[in-house]
Amino acid sequence: MRSRSVTGVLLRMSSLFLRTLREDPADAEVASHRLLVRAGYIRRVASGGFAWLPLGLRVLRKIEAIIREEMDAIGAQEVHFPALLPREPYEASGRWNDYGDSLFRLKDRRGADHLLAPTHEELFTLLVKDLYSSYKDLPLWLYQVQTKYRDEARPRAGLLRGREFVMKDSYSFDVDDAGLAASYERHRAAYVRIFDRLGLDYVMVSAMSGAMGGSRSEEFILPSPNGEDTFVRSPGGYAANVEAVTTVAPQAVSYDDAPAARVVDTPDTPTIATLVAVLIERFPREDRPWVASDTLKNVVLMLRRPDGTDEPLVVGVPGDRDVDMKRLAAQVEPAIARPFADADFAAYPALVKGYVGPQALGADKGLRYFVDPRVAPGTPWTTGADEPGRHVVDLVCGRDFTPDGTIEAAEVRAGDPAPDGSGPLELARGIEIGHIFQLGRRYAEVLDLRVLDEQGKRVVVTMGSYGIGVSRAVAAVAESTYDELGLCWPAAVAPADVHLLVAGKDDKARTVADRLAQELSEAGHTVLYDDRARVSAGVKFADAELLGIPLIVTAGRRVVDGLVEFRVRRTGEQAELAPADVLARVRELAAR
Amino acid sequence: MRSRSVTGVLLRMSSLFLRTLREDPADAEVASHRLLVRAGYIRRVASGGFAWLPLGLRVLRKIEAIIREEMDAIGAQEVHFPALLPREPYEASGRWNDYGDSLFRLKDRRGADHLLAPTHEELFTLLVKDLYSSYKDLPLWLYQVQTKYRDEARPRAGLLRGREFVMKDSYSFDVDDAGLAASYERHRAAYVRIFDRLGLDYVMVSAMSGAMGGSRSEEFILPSPNGEDTFVRSPGGYAANVEAVTTVAPQAVSYDDAPAARVVDTPDTPTIATLVAVLIERFPREDRPWVASDTLKNVVLMLRRPDGTDEPLVVGVPGDRDVDMKRLAAQVEPAIARPFADADFAAYPALVKGYVGPQALGADKGLRYFVDPRVAPGTPWTTGADEPGRHVVDLVCGRDFTPDGTIEAAEVRAGDPAPDGSGPLELARGIEIGHIFQLGRRYAEVLDLRVLDEQGKRVVVTMGSYGIGVSRAVAAVAESTYDELGLCWPAAVAPADVHLLVAGKDDKARTVADRLAQELSEAGHTVLYDDRARVSAGVKFADAELLGIPLIVTAGRRVVDGLVEFRVRRTGEQAELAPADVLARVRELAAR
Repeated sequence: MRSRSVTGVLLRMSSLFLRTLREDPADAEVASHRLLVRAGYIRRVASGGFAWLPLGLRVLRKIEAIIREEMDAIGAQEVHFPALLPREPYEASGRWNDYGDSLFRLKDRRGADHLLAPTHEELFTLLVKDLYSSYKDLPLWLYQVQTKYRDEARPRAGLLRGREFVMKDSYSFDVDDAGLAASYERHRAAYVRIFDRLGLDYVMVSAMSGAMGGSRSEEFILPSPNGEDTFVRSPGGYAANVEAVTTVAPQAVSYDDAPAARVVDTPDTPTIATLVAVLIERFPREDRPWVASDTLKNVVLMLRRPDGTDEPLVVGVPGDRDVDMKRLAAQVEPAIARPFADADFAAYPALVKGYVGPQALGADKGLRYFVDPRVAPGTPWTTGADEPGRHVVDLVCGRDFTPDGTIEAAEVRAGDPAPDGSGPLELARGIEIGHIFQLGRRYAEVLDLRVLDEQGKRVVVTMGSYGIGVSRAVAAVAESTYDELGLCWPAAVAPADVHLLVAGKDDKARTVADRLAQELSEAGHTVLYDDRARVSAGVKFADAELLGIPLIVTAGRRVVDGLVEFRVRRTGEQAELAPADVLARVRELAAR
Repeated sequence: MRSRSVTGVLLRMSSLFLRTLREDPADAEVASHRLLVRAGYIRRVASGGFAWLPLGLRVLRKIEAIIREEMDAIGAQEVHFPALLPREPYEASGRWNDYGDSLFRLKDRRGADHLLAPTHEELFTLLVKDLYSSYKDLPLWLYQVQTKYRDEARPRAGLLRGREFVMKDSYSFDVDDAGLAASYERHRAAYVRIFDRLGLDYVMVSAMSGAMGGSRSEEFILPSPNGEDTFVRSPGGYAANVEAVTTVAPQAVSYDDAPAARVVDTPDTPTIATLVAVLIERFPREDRPWVASDTLKNVVLMLRRPDGTDEPLVVGVPGDRDVDMKRLAAQVEPAIARPFADADFAAYPALVKGYVGPQALGADKGLRYFVDPRVAPGTPWTTGADEPGRHVVDLVCGRDFTPDGTIEAAEVRAGDPAPDGSGPLELARGIEIGHIFQLGRRYAEVLDLRVLDEQGKRVVVTMGSYGIGVSRAVAAVAESTYDELGLCWPAAVAPADVHLLVAGKDDKARTVADRLAQELSEAGHTVLYDDRARVSAGVKFADAELLGIPLIVTAGRRVVDGLVEFRVRRTGEQAELAPADVLARVRELAAR
């Protein structure tokens, strides 16, 4: 092993490009945003766009380095693509349209269409097609750490949801499904190591693969009340994002003994609440009072297909639940759903607003009708009778109406059973920090990436795609470690190992601190040295808490007694040490 | 000093994402482009956009690292800005318009104007304004290594002129001119060190500061026949880009004894050549025959100002020279010049096409008239008489006409005297690899970046801007080092230290090579190991030449005699060594 001497970095606050702020920025909704701006790590320069200041950039680079190490360790190879790309490959995959408003599109001086890439599936596919042609070249794992763009409707939460952000995206290429499964596991294990090294207490949740197509998919979620993602988990260990939760459907029941459906007058009952009240009053059940879940609510929506044409879709859910538009969106994409407008109702006179019933619905009538899995064959429902002020009672699924299929679009509620029988679900919010997908053959198919297999046959390659939000990870780590005093970085990503400060105007203190700064940095540590002359000890202490470097060493009053103060930022643990013992203590703690 | 063990990198060609090509890419005009694509360092994925493959990315990163080291060494601090920026700051500086078609502009989902930044003067200015307010905070030097965009009319020459490229741009902030001069010198010295470390044999040339405004400015140019920039140099050491060359003007001469101007008939002489022929034939001089440089050619142009309005400009040059549109462009920008069209002549009937004379010109007549410095006071000229077929002879500058000023717009020719008296100029082509500017107060003024000076007065900050084309530097190094066999990297930027290959199917050779690969990489060297099984020795040798790693070690036939071949790529220098001696030899040469 060749040995190389390593000198650390000495950052002097007297010249460091840094200003801490006492006030929270007006637009900061979440703690990481607020603190990263106040501590001078980042600075907003555009809607959803931030400049990285020196300390922030150091954190970003450390996270990038950890990700690269783990990607390299599994044999993934780094490449780098442009962000500005021509329309054609994205047109071929359908994503030019599918991405809708969230894609930044532009024209060059010749009028040719371009985009700022949100991810690079198409380009990686074409690159591999360009270079490789045989099963012997596979498996192949490529990755990049690259700047991505997404025209967010509401860029918010600082680095958690920007319009320009850094991602690590990798892609696997395999000749068959078994290969893809192995590549997926390999990335999954690498992601576990990466997020463990970042000290993030994540949850792995089953995910819909969404616009990407494909089969197996998981998200790495950092539970956080500020997160934009909702996920569920059960005591038995089930975890999924809300889009991926499947409903436990009741068994089909026999309807041999069920009473016949009958239409009843229910004047002024356009809502479930008014309907239940009228049912209880006028048509009381014998076994128990009517409840909302006895009713079947038919929600009429309009789908806009990628080609721009419209098609109605009716979703039937038990009356105690709403349609969750995010779950619905995941089911219907690339089409986009919107509520039925009055003009739409006018175009479909069979639909009586507030009283829509299954009798008027069905693909054969131009109104595709999908129901929640709880609307199982044999279950009786009270639902609209397609006339104002009238409902039908004991309408039995499978006997009196047959939906076109089931759909996972009803809201998920705390207490719903986990699909794997592991207990009642709990709902939680979180920040998505990583996402792994089995893409399958979708991109390889449309872009014609094939290789010769062992039998000399040309087969379509199967792919995986794996992303980590690198700039988002900076915020995620901040979000999961800050305390009431400020940021509180784990050693693995802290912009410096030690925050050294001189308190007071004592020349002796400065001499001791100067010497320590030198010694620590020469020993290979990165030292943030608060050597500012005209700044009070109080301000320096407050800055040290806010900046969140793991170890804080103060040369102050006790220097005359041959002592400096040594403090662990996270625990508050304090000790007085001889300056000569500081290096050993830093070494010991930095290695933890 | 803390010691850290460093393990090198072992890149196995059996799995490396690399395919070398035997054929030149069809669109490659210059050697670096051709070879970087053929050797699998980069791959075109868009017009003016390239993917970096693993080996190319290693070169790019090594160059970035060298630049960062030298920037950090002068105390510059690294930050990082978004590329996607709002219109407003660039509107304030005028660059939203000044950049014309070469700026990528786009709208977000709300219709707000954005751009992909070509450079970041405005944003750095605003950031410093945000954080700093006192002379005590200055000088300040900030830099970033960042992806930039420019909508090139003809993206060509591979990495030399792309539409998306990596730049290091830095900016200095000083309270006064002396500070700016010092900051400029500091960057200049750092650039010298950077380009020296890259092994580039550059020329430093005086430059116009162009669209940037400001005063002193120099370019670092790599002389190359494929370069897009033309520059001049003299035997005595003068060097300038063509835009910046100043003309040696003759002394003003007395016109006391000059004959009076007279109009003569010169039918059918719309060009200088026809005019000179007629003068020689009909009006012979006594001292010598007429030559083109006795005539004064008045070139009529139309300027389009940034606000969209037009204004004519007439440029008078000696008849033996053309107007150099690039030199002219540098003088008139941000206005843009185009030749006068017939419709324009129609709008200015005083101008007789082919016979325009100074008598019809001048700001007072709405036709601003600037002349080459050679048109000095007292010099007599034959020029248009503002009538078809007529010229005026002995029209004396300062007696018979007075231009509105002089302009540096005439073409520069080999043999012209250097302005500093250092001898005749030679013209050469080159690649601009760096550019340093004294911006002055232009940006700080319009964006209101002021600080309190020592006297407590608010003063406008003065700035410098300093750029290096990082991705372009990859091509520049390739361009200046390749030979007829392929690329030929200097050790400082090579993607690997050693190219190790097994030639032949001998098991012994593979065992020796495996052991060497291990030993060299564990010793901290990066080894590109050609361990491909079914590839002939000939192909491997050709690939090694093409890839251009500085040292090539071959385990081949002589392995049975206990020897491997050791070769220096650049010199062809060869030796046979015992495998045990390879590491020492690599160490020795890699350190050079």
